[in-house]
Amino acid sequence: MGAADLFPELPTPSLLLEQAILESNIRRMQRLADMHGVALRPHIKTHKSLDLARRQLKEGAVGIAVAKLGEAEVMAAGGIVDIQIANQVVGVRNIDRLVALASRARVSCAVDSIGNAQALSGAFADGGKVLTVMLDIDTGLHRCGLSDHGDIKALAAAIDKLPGLSLKGLLTHAGHAYAGPPENIAALGREEGETMVRLAGQLRADGFTLETISVGSTPTAPHAVAIAGVTELRPGNYVFHDMIQVGLGVATQEQCALSILATVISTPTTTRAVIDAGSKALSSDMGAHGNRSVIGYGRVVGSKLTVTRLSEEHGVIEHTGEDFRVGQRVRIIPNHACAVVNLFDVMYLCDVAGVIAEWPVHARGRSD
Amino acid sequence: MGAADLFPELPTPSLLLEQAILESNIRRMQRLADMHGVALRPHIKTHKSLDLARRQLKEGAVGIAVAKLGEAEVMAAGGIVDIQIANQVVGVRNIDRLVALASRARVSCAVDSIGNAQALSGAFADGGKVLTVMLDIDTGLHRCGLSDHGDIKALAAAIDKLPGLSLKGLLTHAGHAYAGPPENIAALGREEGETMVRLAGQLRADGFTLETISVGSTPTAPHAVAIAGVTELRPGNYVFHDMIQVGLGVATQEQCALSILATVISTPTTTRAVIDAGSKALSSDMGAHGNRSVIGYGRVVGSKLTVTRLSEEHGVIEHTGEDFRVGQRVRIIPNHACAVVNLFDVMYLCDVAGVIAEWPVHARGRSD
Repeated sequence: MGAADLFPELPTPSLLLEQAILESNIRRMQRLADMHGVALRPHIKTHKSLDLARRQLKEGAVGIAVAKLGEAEVMAAGGIVDIQIANQVVGVRNIDRLVALASRARVSCAVDSIGNAQALSGAFADGGKVLTVMLDIDTGLHRCGLSDHGDIKALAAAIDKLPGLSLKGLLTHAGHAYAGPPENIAALGREEGETMVRLAGQLRADGFTLETISVGSTPTAPHAVAIAGVTELRPGNYVFHDMIQVGLGVATQEQCALSILATVISTPTTTRAVIDAGSKALSSDMGAHGNRSVIGYGRVVGSKLTVTRLSEEHGVIEHTGEDFRVGQRVRIIPNHACAVVNLFDVMYLCDVAGVIAEWPVHARGRSD
Repeated sequence: MGAADLFPELPTPSLLLEQAILESNIRRMQRLADMHGVALRPHIKTHKSLDLARRQLKEGAVGIAVAKLGEAEVMAAGGIVDIQIANQVVGVRNIDRLVALASRARVSCAVDSIGNAQALSGAFADGGKVLTVMLDIDTGLHRCGLSDHGDIKALAAAIDKLPGLSLKGLLTHAGHAYAGPPENIAALGREEGETMVRLAGQLRADGFTLETISVGSTPTAPHAVAIAGVTELRPGNYVFHDMIQVGLGVATQEQCALSILATVISTPTTTRAVIDAGSKALSSDMGAHGNRSVIGYGRVVGSKLTVTRLSEEHGVIEHTGEDFRVGQRVRIIPNHACAVVNLFDVMYLCDVAGVIAEWPVHARGRSD
């Protein structure tokens, strides 16, 4: 399960990123998109890394998606020019930042209300600029977004009349697929694509031009991409995978590129080992959107054990007598890679021979 | 519940720290310790801030406790000289760091195994130095630590014979009190203190000198401190409080100093508002150690509403028709303040008139 000499040059807890698995994950998703003639726009909230975003673009991605303006600013400062903010940009302060960003990158954002469209229009038209917007469609997650054709048509019509805005297409995130169970995911992915294509057809019949029909989530990607009329795929987690994806049957444990290197600091009983990674390294994330696919707080690599309890800086592994020793190093595959990366300042790219590179998590904490 | 002009100068999500509540929380715990003639050694894992640690020391704290060597290094670099690492320090790499740290600060750490004591002894004796150690006692949390008098006596005897180590006392954390229910906390706190005093008595009868009997957790503090023989109190969360403490009856909502400032970005239905703070701002923490005292992912200030669902960058507030508007700012009291602070780089100290200071979270991410 581990040894004292596992990456002895690294502190613990540290983030390890296995190069071969990472490369394979990046290529597999790109091939899926290519096979269907669909653009891949990876969501970088998963890794928040310029190095990784550049790697995805080199493999064939058309641009990136981000969740927040802060992430977009970091990516643009790193020279990435095609950025979709797959989220609403709200408030004078943020809209001003978006105007500034639009002078440095080809940027678009999501819209789901006429009021927000008006605010964006005002700022962009004032500066004599045009912002590309995507209508945010709710295909079942029930977070942001519209689902009724009448509401969507009204928003599209409002945008059409507003100066400074250009409607590019429709965008959705079928995060509700995380609720599973695994056997439902294919149907939910097809429904995601079909709903989007149906709404796009209605809007085109209403006279609107829609260039991009963008769907995305790692679980639904292979299923939504197969629906004719979908033009863009926007998954994020696939670069790493994690125990949530394993639990959903979306990936195997061998396809998980990210792990937390930790040290056993105490073995108080013959059935309890305590590691130096707690909720501040593994996060308390056990799945969102109704997900119930994980047990515990992370899988111990090379075993069937999980981290059974978490404090902030302790992970407790309750076991049945396995050989854990104080000082031993172990690796933990996290439940949710995206939450974990946001806790660390660097990731260590590695292979069997050791550490290859230290990659900063450039946009860590940029939820602004 | 909020207004568009709530701290308009700040980005969202941001961390707000209300000065009057903070000051009152700091003073109240110091008075409790003073009243019982017990030393207060605040655990700074909650705030990770030099400004706040200095404030606690100024009020009368004898020193600080930290969870990790990385935190200790940050605090020592900031000029704090009395630092207890209330945790095991394991492995050659970390023990070397501890030796270096001990030349810059008066530092102690916890020990719960003879093997670890031997490793610490080797490194400190080699350098002709002495490390002060505390025996880690398990008073019911069942994480690290020993509970059997025979085991504890054997460890104390081993330390006594080892060069480079000096036994200072006993240390425990009654984190199991977080399991509640509220009516059990007083008894658990008394038991924490009584167990420690009983074990100390046995060890003294065995011939060991114990200067410090250190207990600590915000819920049990008022109860454990009242047990004669306890000499040191080590709570952390009390500076802020949070919804977990409110749920346990340990604090009122009005005694919660920390909140997350967020913006409503979407109101897709008459009963759903979506804010720009998700698990990367509020954490997914719903309580550890068996805690079941919270509902949802944070309380909306000025209402009985909670954040009912979280994505990474979205918080969904399901409500019964309250007036939420896109662009409106709201404040959320988090479930677990310690987890939340570790997600942010700065806290904004504020009062009713606005922002007073920007305090860095100096040891953010220092889980190493």
